[in-house]
Amino acid sequence: MAKHGSSSTLLVIGLGLLGGSVLRAAREANLYAHYLGYDARPDVIASAQQLGVTDNATGEFDALVKQADLIVIAVPVLAVSGIFQKLQAADALDRHITDVASVKLPIVQAAQQVAGAAPPRFIPAHPITGSEQSGLAAAQASLFADHKVIVTPHEHSDADALAYVNGFWAALGAEVVSMDAATHDNILAKTSHLPHVLAYVLVNTLLAQSNVDSMFEFAAGGFRDFSRIASSDPTMWHDILLANKQAVLTAIEQFENELQTTRQAIEKNDGAALFKLLSEAKAARDTRVARSGDAGSN
Amino acid sequence: MAKHGSSSTLLVIGLGLLGGSVLRAAREANLYAHYLGYDARPDVIASAQQLGVTDNATGEFDALVKQADLIVIAVPVLAVSGIFQKLQAADALDRHITDVASVKLPIVQAAQQVAGAAPPRFIPAHPITGSEQSGLAAAQASLFADHKVIVTPHEHSDADALAYVNGFWAALGAEVVSMDAATHDNILAKTSHLPHVLAYVLVNTLLAQSNVDSMFEFAAGGFRDFSRIASSDPTMWHDILLANKQAVLTAIEQFENELQTTRQAIEKNDGAALFKLLSEAKAARDTRVARSGDAGSN
Repeated sequence: MAKHGSSSTLLVIGLGLLGGSVLRAAREANLYAHYLGYDARPDVIASAQQLGVTDNATGEFDALVKQADLIVIAVPVLAVSGIFQKLQAADALDRHITDVASVKLPIVQAAQQVAGAAPPRFIPAHPITGSEQSGLAAAQASLFADHKVIVTPHEHSDADALAYVNGFWAALGAEVVSMDAATHDNILAKTSHLPHVLAYVLVNTLLAQSNVDSMFEFAAGGFRDFSRIASSDPTMWHDILLANKQAVLTAIEQFENELQTTRQAIEKNDGAALFKLLSEAKAARDTRVARSGDAGSN
Repeated sequence: MAKHGSSSTLLVIGLGLLGGSVLRAAREANLYAHYLGYDARPDVIASAQQLGVTDNATGEFDALVKQADLIVIAVPVLAVSGIFQKLQAADALDRHITDVASVKLPIVQAAQQVAGAAPPRFIPAHPITGSEQSGLAAAQASLFADHKVIVTPHEHSDADALAYVNGFWAALGAEVVSMDAATHDNILAKTSHLPHVLAYVLVNTLLAQSNVDSMFEFAAGGFRDFSRIASSDPTMWHDILLANKQAVLTAIEQFENELQTTRQAIEKNDGAALFKLLSEAKAARDTRVARSGDAGSN
């Protein structure tokens, strides 16, 4: 993305890990003249200015959005609809808008419900990055470098806006990939939302044991890695799981069926079937999963 | 453990990751005068000598075991019984013997079946370490340092032998912890065997999708960490899951029940219940799971 003029302004709404990282990354790439942030929590706004994440600018929501060339919505999924309502009230749905939510169809539907049709300059996006960490203090400029950002243009998307938003994410170092929102939500239900459910549920399974202290004392590295994503922000994941409900329920059901197959092989002492199941999984894990140091989790 | 005399000999039976690492660690700690290895695979014996894991000694099983002050059994779980039979045939069940298997009650039972009663100098042990890697080439002297080794003495255990074997593992850098075999198998079923099952099953769930290539292409860091242990050796895990069958089936059943609770919260849009489940898991993960860089998996 070409650098904009001396008056160009980036506004990020929602100053958590992702929103803060967008501001830090854009500033490091010197993409805009002004870096503004909005958050419903006054203490977070103060922190953002203190940490140098945002310019030392104050302002009400309406005044901020009117200055913005690009608005990045980075609030939890179920709070996005309220932001669209505020943007419409501020007459700002004609700005370039993108977002970072881990689900995409519910975000497009939220925009449609507020505006009648999804705004042409709204280009939904999901950076496949993040971390089990959360909060502004963990924000970092390098969060998007060499990670995929999936953009999901809708039927009313404007071609110039699409190029602008694609260029923005690419300028932060991301590899931009495009697909439709439903496909995104289906894939992520299996590759991200399901593993998060399993990690939370595994920890709760250990918590339910009478000898819970011993359980955690002897949990080794496999458990540690496996359960890392259970440290993710519960508000964020509450929202994702409910917003992507049908795809998540389907993923859980498919997992349960696979688990039954494996359980039955153990129950019946069917060593040949069990060995085949384990070997196929190992072969896929070894050959299909990149071995990079990527620690992203969304 | 005090260093033994100039004629003292360590013999490891089964030269994979764990067996090779025992030899490397003992040699680095200079615990014995001679380091011998036995493996049913001639090419592995050749590799062990080439890599300097074992002394350049050859010999039949019976000749090797007669020289040994300590025998460490490091073969897959379901192969341990056959080793006890060979040890009995070689009249070597009076040696100090320990093992590295991830299940303990089936190992004690195998010894009982062969010898009538578990040999007094056999002290079962399980190093909570290892890795998703396998094979002699991955063996390293530091594998046990700062990791727990659980020893599970049985009713006939000799006190001197217990002190000898505890001292051996401590001399490799491990923290030695003692518990009964059934407790060990129950804890490990939940903290290790269950996560391995879930990781294998998750990978197989993705493999069952029609758009399998996209699934793995967009799997992010959370999936990578979560599924790392699905790269573990299928033979080893086939044996563990079948040997610890009842405890593993109980762990799977408890996990399924917890998964149902979470699934129902999503299905009913019960946000409060879902948030509570996720928050409790996060709190436990954050406070109860050590944050060390330990990458062990067994």
